[in-house]
Amino acid sequence: MTDDQAAVTEANARFYHAFEALDLAAMDAVWAHTGDVKCVHPGWPLLIGWDAVRESWQAIFANTEEMRFTLSDVRVVVHGDLGWVTCTENILSDVRGRVAVTAILATNLFAHVAGHWRLIHHHASHVLAPGEVSEA
Amino acid sequence: MTDDQAAVTEANARFYHAFEALDLAAMDAVWAHTGDVKCVHPGWPLLIGWDAVRESWQAIFANTEEMRFTLSDVRVVVHGDLGWVTCTENILSDVRGRVAVTAILATNLFAHVAGHWRLIHHHASHVLAPGEVSEA
Repeated sequence: MTDDQAAVTEANARFYHAFEALDLAAMDAVWAHTGDVKCVHPGWPLLIGWDAVRESWQAIFANTEEMRFTLSDVRVVVHGDLGWVTCTENILSDVRGRVAVTAILATNLFAHVAGHWRLIHHHASHVLAPGEVSEA
Repeated sequence: MTDDQAAVTEANARFYHAFEALDLAAMDAVWAHTGDVKCVHPGWPLLIGWDAVRESWQAIFANTEEMRFTLSDVRVVVHGDLGWVTCTENILSDVRGRVAVTAILATNLFAHVAGHWRLIHHHASHVLAPGEVSEA
């Protein structure tokens, strides 16, 4: 693993730690704060721009009692000052008293800005059981 | 729109034309043929490497009678020799006689390789109706 790959892996881990901690200030530090960052929560429509993305985290954190991730299949590619990660988020959540374990597949795109790797694009989606899968 | 953005927009359109045409040779021409290309069809687990990705298209094409896309909200960002597109795939499909209209959200990442923009990462997921949406 190169230094850049390690740095992107760390930035990706910080994202999930901020999510687990339900900590908006930590989430602020993970993302680039620009008008063209984008975020797709599982099943949600596309959110565009840091203001909309931040609001979504605020809403998610306000409605979540507990969030625990185990990441698996973390794969990192770095190309110049962009890096992207794919990983499976194995989630244990407690939303309003309902505990659930879910597998979510995420694509996370990071940009190297002013010495830091910042998240600029997060696309997360449910992995369905074989019977539920559609071809397109 | 810059020349690069136009070229990435075109490459993205070629991807959906290949999909509509159920044309594996056209799909071959869209993608980079490397071991680290990745593809997430809606609800599917992650596919890694061109061989696995190509096989998935072959299987999808073999099981699809007709596929019609209307793309909306196409947004293109280019940064050096990488470009990424988000778009909504409004799909009319006929899979084994079952016609359906579906909204899919896609993130498509392209790399500029030897004068051509090639798809290296496709992540597509269903947009659910508000009642079906989960927070994580």
